[in-house]
Amino acid sequence: MGFPDCYGGYPRTIQPGPLNLITDVSGVQVGHTTLSGGDVHTGVTVLLPHGGDTFHEKCRAAVHVINGYGKSAGLVQVAEMGTVETPIFFTNTLSVGTVFTAAVRYMLERNEDIGRKAGTVNPVVFECNDGTLNDIRLLSVQESDVFRALESAGTRFEEGAVGAGTGMSCYDLKGGIGSSSRVFRIHGRQYTLGTLLLTNFGSLDQLLVGGIPVGRRYLDAREQEPEKGSCIVVLATDAPLSGRQLLRVAKRAQSGLARTGSCTGNGSGEIALAFSTAGRVPHASAGEPLAMERLHDDDLNMVFRAAVESTEESVLSSMIHAPHTVGRGGAQRRSLREVLDAVDFRF
Amino acid sequence: MGFPDCYGGYPRTIQPGPLNLITDVSGVQVGHTTLSGGDVHTGVTVLLPHGGDTFHEKCRAAVHVINGYGKSAGLVQVAEMGTVETPIFFTNTLSVGTVFTAAVRYMLERNEDIGRKAGTVNPVVFECNDGTLNDIRLLSVQESDVFRALESAGTRFEEGAVGAGTGMSCYDLKGGIGSSSRVFRIHGRQYTLGTLLLTNFGSLDQLLVGGIPVGRRYLDAREQEPEKGSCIVVLATDAPLSGRQLLRVAKRAQSGLARTGSCTGNGSGEIALAFSTAGRVPHASAGEPLAMERLHDDDLNMVFRAAVESTEESVLSSMIHAPHTVGRGGAQRRSLREVLDAVDFRF
Amino acid sequence: MGFPDCYGGYPRTIQPGPLNLITDVSGVQVGHTTLSGGDVHTGVTVLLPHGGDTFHEKCRAAVHVINGYGKSAGLVQVAEMGTVETPIFFTNTLSVGTVFTAAVRYMLERNEDIGRKAGTVNPVVFECNDGTLNDIRLLSVQESDVFRALESAGTRFEEGAVGAGTGMSCYDLKGGIGSSSRVFRIHGRQYTLGTLLLTNFGSLDQLLVGGIPVGRRYLDAREQEPEKGSCIVVLATDAPLSGRQLLRVAKRAQSGLARTGSCTGNGSGEIALAFSTAGRVPHASAGEPLAMERLHDDDLNMVFRAAVESTEESVLSSMIHAPHTVGRGGAQRRSLREVLDAVDFRF
Amino acid sequence: MGFPDCYGGYPRTIQPGPLNLITDVSGVQVGHTTLSGGDVHTGVTVLLPHGGDTFHEKCRAAVHVINGYGKSAGLVQVAEMGTVETPIFFTNTLSVGTVFTAAVRYMLERNEDIGRKAGTVNPVVFECNDGTLNDIRLLSVQESDVFRALESAGTRFEEGAVGAGTGMSCYDLKGGIGSSSRVFRIHGRQYTLGTLLLTNFGSLDQLLVGGIPVGRRYLDAREQEPEKGSCIVVLATDAPLSGRQLLRVAKRAQSGLARTGSCTGNGSGEIALAFSTAGRVPHASAGEPLAMERLHDDDLNMVFRAAVESTEESVLSSMIHAPHTVGRGGAQRRSLREVLDAVDFRF
Repeated sequence: MGFPDCYGGYPRTIQPGPLNLITDVSGVQVGHTTLSGGDVHTGVTVLLPHGGDTFHEKCRAAVHVINGYGKSAGLVQVAEMGTVETPIFFTNTLSVGTVFTAAVRYMLERNEDIGRKAGTVNPVVFECNDGTLNDIRLLSVQESDVFRALESAGTRFEEGAVGAGTGMSCYDLKGGIGSSSRVFRIHGRQYTLGTLLLTNFGSLDQLLVGGIPVGRRYLDAREQEPEKGSCIVVLATDAPLSGRQLLRVAKRAQSGLARTGSCTGNGSGEIALAFSTAGRVPHASAGEPLAMERLHDDDLNMVFRAAVESTEESVLSSMIHAPHTVGRGGAQRRSLREVLDAVDFRF
Repeated sequence: MGFPDCYGGYPRTIQPGPLNLITDVSGVQVGHTTLSGGDVHTGVTVLLPHGGDTFHEKCRAAVHVINGYGKSAGLVQVAEMGTVETPIFFTNTLSVGTVFTAAVRYMLERNEDIGRKAGTVNPVVFECNDGTLNDIRLLSVQESDVFRALESAGTRFEEGAVGAGTGMSCYDLKGGIGSSSRVFRIHGRQYTLGTLLLTNFGSLDQLLVGGIPVGRRYLDAREQEPEKGSCIVVLATDAPLSGRQLLRVAKRAQSGLARTGSCTGNGSGEIALAFSTAGRVPHASAGEPLAMERLHDDDLNMVFRAAVESTEESVLSSMIHAPHTVGRGGAQRRSLREVLDAVDFRF
Repeated sequence: MGFPDCYGGYPRTIQPGPLNLITDVSGVQVGHTTLSGGDVHTGVTVLLPHGGDTFHEKCRAAVHVINGYGKSAGLVQVAEMGTVETPIFFTNTLSVGTVFTAAVRYMLERNEDIGRKAGTVNPVVFECNDGTLNDIRLLSVQESDVFRALESAGTRFEEGAVGAGTGMSCYDLKGGIGSSSRVFRIHGRQYTLGTLLLTNFGSLDQLLVGGIPVGRRYLDAREQEPEKGSCIVVLATDAPLSGRQLLRVAKRAQSGLARTGSCTGNGSGEIALAFSTAGRVPHASAGEPLAMERLHDDDLNMVFRAAVESTEESVLSSMIHAPHTVGRGGAQRRSLREVLDAVDFRF
Repeated sequence: MGFPDCYGGYPRTIQPGPLNLITDVSGVQVGHTTLSGGDVHTGVTVLLPHGGDTFHEKCRAAVHVINGYGKSAGLVQVAEMGTVETPIFFTNTLSVGTVFTAAVRYMLERNEDIGRKAGTVNPVVFECNDGTLNDIRLLSVQESDVFRALESAGTRFEEGAVGAGTGMSCYDLKGGIGSSSRVFRIHGRQYTLGTLLLTNFGSLDQLLVGGIPVGRRYLDAREQEPEKGSCIVVLATDAPLSGRQLLRVAKRAQSGLARTGSCTGNGSGEIALAFSTAGRVPHASAGEPLAMERLHDDDLNMVFRAAVESTEESVLSSMIHAPHTVGRGGAQRRSLREVLDAVDFRF
């Protein structure tokens, strides 16, 4: 849904798609399981790269580590083989193991050849630390929560304090799941790029909204917390891009985050994964060389710009859709809405 | 224990330590849980980097991906922060999640500050695919198996078809856990470097033993299998090395594997992690800059040579200590001993 | 000198040093040779990392490629060995060879052991393409120009259209050499970080000045040029940092550039090199391990913030100090001053 | 020409092409300029990736740094854009600048659009340090030497102490230029892979010839020199491979070097570049997406094996074709032939 118009209209140089969500990229679906109550504020989010069998029809993909203070699983193989072959999973840091196992079971159920003739499978599991609002030591996420998220996946999904974003904090405010999209033309062909973020980084004094130092204006008499946290950025596009090119796209995520004020703190696990839904890669060789379409690199500037802008807006969207939240032991996170209202913000 | 003398004495240019095991590096301990019977041939191996509290006294470390067809967890943070902060775990590919969760519970039990003031914890979990001898789809490894391996850890440990190596294959023969060490002097100071390998790679026609093409001599009338599998190499040393230098050491693992004949197949997850037991890094800053000792890079040549040679010997040691094994559905793997005896091998 | 106060005072969260130049880091010196006239608008800039013998007392360093459409020389060895051992040179793209050779001669003159007992030497030569304002095909830079730049080096130096920056363009305006610095305290100790940039990137519609979309406000009825060009960022600090940590600092340069609006175009060679003047590395081993001081990684957040902020200000400083310039064949580049005056800009 | 049969026939598992040179890959040409006399033993070697206009029809390429103690130019852009767009040049370390400038002039002469509408050009210049046999401080290589090497390029070329290899040392013996090739079939299609090496690395006690420790057998009563030097490996193939896949091929060069005994010393600049002559990339976008053929990754095992084996043979070929050489100040390098004859070597 992106950033709401009630604040004057978010300044975009490229227009969003119809939903202003990553699901504007045809085939992409997102689902959540939210665990919320008492000291538990956590969950699972899943992203299906396309509607079909991702193991036998892999998407070209690349991964870039902006800052590697993170425990995400499955990245080594994405980098080497240039593909994703499972849904992409998001959860809290200490639940990566549980979600990995559930992802394995999900893939085994659907693919009898895994562990037999087809080798193994590489689940991609991303994480951030929701320990401020969630009692992360409880390991609350169960394998069944992963399956529920998969079952709920669709093209319309909530942002903010939902799924893996339930307990996340961003710029000392409430963060979580944010999404946005951009539609653009290259040599007459229309393409879409969308982003899904799990935001959990930054300190309030750094926050920029559309370039305006909202955090410092609001803070003044307030105490500043030390920077911590992480951010996961998934970028999807229907533009045909090679693994090398998708790596170039993933690297632009840092610029999108920087525009919201972040300097990428020491303890932040910031990782970007980009994938293309165009030009699937079969699991096994059919003998013939593959003819894979890709854009000429000269034509990537618009893709890069869309990546930066959609990443920036997704950060803000994750915050504006999250309500004021009270979590573990009474810890609180304000909503960005409160801050924008307090500083009388208008673009 | 390394390669036995009964084959003529393994040709070494640097001498091993007293055990010819990675545990010749003071403080390192290794333990196994072996699951063996019927279609189940798998397990867990753990390596403790030092005898103390690894979370609050981290070891400097680096990781190098030789070929990234692998699902190991925890590598991103090792690369960024230059430290390992947990035991190092080894298991089969699809059990990475279970072992990750057990590792988290183990660290939570010992560190009340994790998930509270100290942030989270980064377990390193390595894997290879033992699907030929083990029914990997059963997900047989339980969290309790991980705890049993931790409890059994010591300086003396078995090699071959044990722990995570129970079901592994190497050069189409029985592989598994192999270890070796080297002791050398640099400017009058004595240092030890040891290696622990989980071997699961190569095809028999490629196998070199001390440069001798044992595989091709043996094969002749036999059928060749397609190359597959993986290899994990952990290198430990008490030489003081920075993260950058440990990365340089880790990269030499490829040369050690190559000397046994491998060309690193497409489907091989070959990953090397090097750590130093000298110069621990505290979890939190004490305010003062740290004075970290490290060798001058000019002095690394002997460390590199020890790394290559100990890696090479560990591959062969993993195979020579593994017996002829019958696994899932009657699948068989011969022992390297059978091959060496058949080709009347003597150095 | 940084961004001038006449525009309302640049919004800084950390204060600059006395000169607001990279030379606020003690020991750093910068010199220029400017070639300007007719179709020639190019030159050479040199940065001396410290006042002494850089070959025998190397600085710890790291290099990060943000976008690799560039021809800079010497980066491979900086990455491997973690040191710079010569002055750092800047020129136009096609003159890298001439400057490399001059740098070799300069080092040979001062070090009789190079090419004899001490091995060779690794000059670092950075470049951007000044082809819009300069007839780059003329290869106008001579080796003597490099020596003149070295002789002119000092702590006070000009910014804008000077030295290697003479012919550069930034955001379709006149770019060139920009510098800034920040002074900060970590656990009571004072450190300085400074940046020197060669700016030659971006398109005007992207330009942000302190978050304000100055480019779009100014453009309106004007034609937009396709994005092209490059940017070199050198970050110097007296904080004691390891090679791994300096790499982390170098990566933050992208965030500083992003804050001025850039999405890092396809054809941009954007490279960041960070070095520390604390804890020199001798050329040859003296036998004993080296005790190298470094900050705890927990203490890097302030360094990262200084890196981002000083990089951002250096971009703007390179532009605000460059006058409206007429170059090759009458090609023109406006000054940022004209733009800020036209849009009645005030912070 | 590869390794001669007089030593019993080199043990190959894949057959070489008709010339057993990199020029067995159709379109590849190689030329030399040799400077030899008195204290000067150096030169230039050039490799043309294909017979046409490499700037407007680029070859897909990738580069891998095995050990980065080297000063080669042009690698950053190959890594980012996945192409080579000039001939590939080889010379001594301190002459990189001169060769870079000559390469620029060569490209400017042939392309009027460089520096105008087409941006700049990225020459790839590789180097090793021939300082033992050559007075490298003399900077003897002139730009005209580069043009002469280009003019002499053809499909038949000498190996050993020629061109850039004139003054190089390998395993304390005479090294230089070595080449080999392999022809293989994948799903019925025939492909060729060839390698060209500039060898200048290793110490004699490490040397393995076909797995046999020739160096140690020969040394016995002789003095050992400290390990130093470098190695450049260029791999060409007509198999259709993407940039990501070519990087995987380049990484296998280390395994080929390791089979000759090297542990990759601290001071060795070992760099591998792989390119494909199949599927050229135009300089500018034509608007439509490109349909680039590439093999399925499952089919790469044979390519990897060819890369390892051809690299190994090229090292030995560089040495076996080089005569006993007396260089600067009477420094001597024996030929590998002398060593093999002395140890009565037969495969």
